[in-house]
Formats: sequence, structure tokens, C-alpha cells
Amino acid sequence: MAALACVGAVVAPAAAAQWTASSPTSASSSSSSSCGIGASQSVGFRGSAMAVKPLRVFRTQKVAVKASSQGGEAPVAVKEKETPQGIEHEQMVSERPSSLLREGEGVQWDNPSTASMRARFETMIRKAGVNVSVVYGSMPPEAYRAATGGTSSNGGSTNKAGRIPFFAAGVSSVMHPKNPMAPTVHFNYRYFETDAPQGVEGAPRAWWFGGGTDLTPSYIFDEDVKHFHQTQKDACDKHDPEFYPKYKKWCDDYFLIKHRGERRGLGGIFFDDLNDRDADQILAFSTECANAVIPAYIPIIEKRKDMPFTAEQKAWQQLRRGRYVEFNLVYDRGTTFGLKTGGRIESILMSLPLTARWEYDHAPEEGSEEWNLLDACRKPREWAV
Amino acid sequence: MAALACVGAVVAPAAAAQWTASSPTSASSSSSSSCGIGASQSVGFRGSAMAVKPLRVFRTQKVAVKASSQGGEAPVAVKEKETPQGIEHEQMVSERPSSLLREGEGVQWDNPSTASMRARFETMIRKAGVNVSVVYGSMPPEAYRAATGGTSSNGGSTNKAGRIPFFAAGVSSVMHPKNPMAPTVHFNYRYFETDAPQGVEGAPRAWWFGGGTDLTPSYIFDEDVKHFHQTQKDACDKHDPEFYPKYKKWCDDYFLIKHRGERRGLGGIFFDDLNDRDADQILAFSTECANAVIPAYIPIIEKRKDMPFTAEQKAWQQLRRGRYVEFNLVYDRGTTFGLKTGGRIESILMSLPLTARWEYDHAPEEGSEEWNLLDACRKPREWAV
Repeated sequence: MAALACVGAVVAPAAAAQWTASSPTSASSSSSSSCGIGASQSVGFRGSAMAVKPLRVFRTQKVAVKASSQGGEAPVAVKEKETPQGIEHEQMVSERPSSLLREGEGVQWDNPSTASMRARFETMIRKAGVNVSVVYGSMPPEAYRAATGGTSSNGGSTNKAGRIPFFAAGVSSVMHPKNPMAPTVHFNYRYFETDAPQGVEGAPRAWWFGGGTDLTPSYIFDEDVKHFHQTQKDACDKHDPEFYPKYKKWCDDYFLIKHRGERRGLGGIFFDDLNDRDADQILAFSTECANAVIPAYIPIIEKRKDMPFTAEQKAWQQLRRGRYVEFNLVYDRGTTFGLKTGGRIESILMSLPLTARWEYDHAPEEGSEEWNLLDACRKPREWAV
Repeated sequence: MAALACVGAVVAPAAAAQWTASSPTSASSSSSSSCGIGASQSVGFRGSAMAVKPLRVFRTQKVAVKASSQGGEAPVAVKEKETPQGIEHEQMVSERPSSLLREGEGVQWDNPSTASMRARFETMIRKAGVNVSVVYGSMPPEAYRAATGGTSSNGGSTNKAGRIPFFAAGVSSVMHPKNPMAPTVHFNYRYFETDAPQGVEGAPRAWWFGGGTDLTPSYIFDEDVKHFHQTQKDACDKHDPEFYPKYKKWCDDYFLIKHRGERRGLGGIFFDDLNDRDADQILAFSTECANAVIPAYIPIIEKRKDMPFTAEQKAWQQLRRGRYVEFNLVYDRGTTFGLKTGGRIESILMSLPLTARWEYDHAPEEGSEEWNLLDACRKPREWAV
């Protein structure tokens, strides 16, 4: 049984999402996945090393959508639910659809190079086999103008166009190991685009990429954190030597628990709103980053998942999980946006750990291993060379 | 050892709080307390029935303030900390001061009926012996105008007055029992007032009362919930028969976890911004409500704290504690305000349970006891007659 706790609905942008389809974590996986994330399922988390949160596949009745699964049996129960965004009906599906896109939007495999970016990104994340969401929705003109840079050259004329259809797709996962020596990892890669507003000459199509991978240990093994960051840096360096320092800092800034002045973990890379170069180049970079998750994380898990630990070390892990909960519920954009706009709660909150702990005014002894972790969360260190 | 997990700094209004002083939970208490909350400590929570979060007494060096304790030994360690609100230095005190007010503001016991409302409210909560905070601060004129009803009859002239000094005092506590058959209780009673702006003729002093008591069981014992609500209603009815229905509904509305469409518990009473009648009447009502906490809650704890329970029932309690965390971090005004404005984190987050749990898409079997609790959290019931 693959045991990944996955995040759904994190790709929804600042507009009304009409529906979300999530794929399940599958028990088996295609090791020939072109993306490579699927390989995680045959490498890492078997048995009871991880806290299991089973995933399900949903599709709506309102819009023709196909939810993807890499294998395994999805539940067939039907669940009724209403949200402010008009998700009137979610139905779990028992079959694995060939695409999460609308009919006719998928890659034509006789000539894949001609496929749209939405089709190519969807293909990249759907083979991934962890948690995948694809959202078709529409946004008000003001949101579109904000997304394309405020008042565009064609003035306020997009007002006439009414709501702008958008497409958002993402892959994401959070893994919270049971063993306090084994770190939590989170990653999320997403793509967003709007249609060009109809009847408004010259109005551009908006699009951007976002994502990142970050590590949250309870105890620092220097060699692990160095390996993790170095793998991210190597992936970045293949595309631009400026990427790693920039996105490493962005990650340190983003995962700050402001009210504590500490990060939830030891970072990695993070970027958002990326559209300053050719979309194909950014897709290649996003794919590189997604491919780097497994080689960055799995060797660490292999080494740490069966290490002995004490009850005190488990309690410290649980305290750090409490900080994880604080960050996700109070600051994480995907989570807070999802909660406020009536997204699918179980998908949004799947990033939370199975268990967490709070103790009044806990302060590790100076110089202890716990203190060392806290120190690194307060003052980010450089891990890669 | 009294074992109460208490909330601090919940009284800070929407303005910069300059400092907070919290009293400790004391081991012994004065059973002759005129308030009566102190009696809880000699009745309920001894031994290991409750998760203990030790409290400490702080006072700042910046402002002359005395922190109150009902007894027991407070720690004497000194802690340095900076916050955006200018709490530059917090010092735990080892002696029990006679008042939390500034010198000269306390009740003159030779003629207590002439005392100010701030002195009388402080006296009411300081005998309480749970968690007490007293805040002196100053707010910008805009906040004052909002507090006194927007644009007042004297136009914008309060601008000239600069920042308005305010006073806020409150008593609060959250108790999370270990036994899943024993419910969590939370209460909080607070009083807020501003000075009249100097040099602005006719500008009013602003003041109001707020508070409430609510019950959060994991399992419903009808007789317990009826007793709890009936005690609240009886207290309310002594002052106005309209209070209980109004404040019971306010409580049901306030403690809603919006993203789940369920309340964190089974409610009680809640009110805020109360200043529509004589302040003495509202003080008497607030005191009545605070006095009702012990008779409402202690008999329930006495009956449930040693009941046998299964691991599954404990896990369900932990899931409900996860909901408690969600409410407090995402919606609770005191908590979210405190986090955003740099309040004292350990005080703000003391309302969180020691441990909590999240499971993916957990749904109790229809008709089960767990389902019954969830049903009552989704559709508030009438418990009092």
C-alpha cells in the first residue's frame, strides 16, 4: 500500500473554481513514468512507516471531466456535497480515465509536440500518480486584469467580456513519516492559464507556473539536508544558475511562521507567478524540479525510516507537526484560500499531519539537537555548494 | 496541582496593546471568593485527569503593573522578548501583587462602591484565579471612532487628540480533559474602555463587555449538556429572559467552523460589544455568568473524568481536538488578532489542546455516538427548558 498524504485543490487561483478532480494515490505505479514521481511508490513507503491517508477520485456531474488514476481500485461510493463555488455533486469513479482534461483537449499522441501547454502539463502531472488536481473555472474581469498586470493597454475594455474562463492544474504531495528521524517532504507544481477574453481585441491570454519542494525534519542530519538542497540546486542549475539562490530564498521567506519568527522547516525551493520566459522553458524547468523530488528525498527516507527513537524524540516531532499545522492553517495561501472559498475540505486539509502536539512555552535546551533544529528554522542556513 | 489550560491576551482590542500581564493558575484557592470561579481549583482537576500547561506570571518593566496570583509559587526566571507592540521586557514575578491595575486605580476598600468600573471588573476577575490579563494601551483615533460608532457628532475632531488610551481586562480558561467522556470547557469574560480623548469637547468614553462559556464534548450525554445549558440559562434569566435565547444563538453562530459547516462543540452563551444598558447591570450579568461556570461544568467532570474508554474513543476525541485547533487558528478573533499583531504567542495559543489528530475524510457511521455528536455540531439543538 502506497502511503502518501496528498494535498488537493492547491492550484485554485484567486477566482471561483467550478470543480476539482483529484486522483488517488495508487498502490502500484508505472515505473516507466516519464515524470518519475510515480517511482516513489515502488521505492519508499510500504507497510507502516508512514501515516496513511487514503485518497479518492471524484468527478462532478456538472462538467464533463475525467479523473485519472495510475492503478488500484478507487472507491465507488457516491457523495453529495454543496459548496459556494457550485460543486453540486462529486462522484467517485471506479474507472481510470485516460485524461483529466475535457474531451478534445488531451494530447494527440500521433503528434504530441503540437499539444497545448495545458495538455502537456496535465500529461506531466497525471503520470506522477500522487495527488493531481485539474480545475476549469471562470474569473471576474477584475481578477483577470490583476493577473495580467492591472490596467492593460486596451484599457478597461475587458469589462465587456464578462467572466474569463481559466484552467489550473497541479500536482502535490505531503509525506509525514512516523519516525522522527525521517523528515517530512512537501512538493507542489502547478500551471495556470486563462482564455483570451472573447470580443476584446488585443487582450492577452494570461498564464504562469508555480511550485516548489521543501524539507521539514525534526532532527538535522547535516548530510541529509545537504543532499536534499544539493539535488534541488543541481536541478535548478541545469536551467539557470540564478534560479537556486533566488528560489531557495523565496522558499525561506514563504514558509515563515510569522508569529513565531521561525520557518516550518529547512526549506528547499519555491517560486510563483513564473512567466518571464518561454513557457516551454518553464515547463522543462518545472518538470526537472518535479523529477528531482524522488532523488532528493528517497535516499534520506531509506536511511532514517527504521532508526530507533525515544518517546521524547517522538514528542518533539509532534511539537514540530504542531508548527506545521500552524503554518498551513494560518499562512499557506492554498489552504487559506481553499478554506475561505469553499473548496473541498478533505483535499485542502490533507496536508495536515495525522497527529500534532502543543506544549506551553516549550524551549529546547541550548545546544541540544532540538535547539539546533529550531536555530536552523530561525536563521536559514546555506546547505548546497 | 490545579490543571487548567488557560488563554491569555484574548482581551486585546483592535489596537496596539502595550503590554499584558497574566496570572498563574494557582494550586490553592480562596473558597470565599466573591466570584466563585476560584472554587474550581478545590473541586475538579487534581492528579492526571487533565493535560497540564503550566502558567506563569509576567510583568513588564516599561509600565508599572502588578500581576496577581491566588497563591502557590510563581516561577522567578526572567525572559527577554521583543514584539511589534513594544513589549520589550517580560519579567516573571515571585510575589503576589495586590492588584493588576496601575497604582492608585485599585478599589479603595473603605468605600468600594465608589470604585471605577475598571477597578471593580479587575477585582471580579482577579479573584477568579484562572487566567487573567489586564492591558493598558493606546489606539489610533480611527479605531476609537470605529469603537464609538463611526463618525461621531463631533465630526472628525478626535483626530486632533492623537492616540486614545484604553484599558482592557479579561478572565479566560480552556480545559481539555484527557478522558474522552469528559467535555472541554472554555470561558472568557472581558471589559474594555477607552479614556475620553483629551481636548475634544463632548467626545465620549467608549466601553463594552463581552464574554461567554461554551462546552465541547466528544460524546454526548444528554443529561450533561442539558445541565450545562440550563445553568447558563438560569444565570441569564436572572437578568433578562431575552438574554439566553439571544446569546445561545450568538454562541452557535460564533463557534462555527465555516469550512466544515459544523460548530466546534455544543455551544453555551456568547456576547460581545455589550453596552446597551447601565454598566453596573452588565457587570452584574457578567459576574453572574462567570459564577455559573463552576456549577455548570464541575458536576459533569466529576461524573465523567474516570469513565473507562477505548482507544477508538480516544482517537475520536483527538479528531475533535483537531477541529478545535482549526477553529481557533482560522476563525477565533482573539487568536487571529493576537497572531497578526505580535501578541505573546504562548498566551495566545494556550487555548490549543495538548494533542490533536486529522484523518482523511473521516465520517462516523450513521447512527453511531460519534455521528450523533457531529449531527449536533451541524444542527444546533435546544438543550434548556
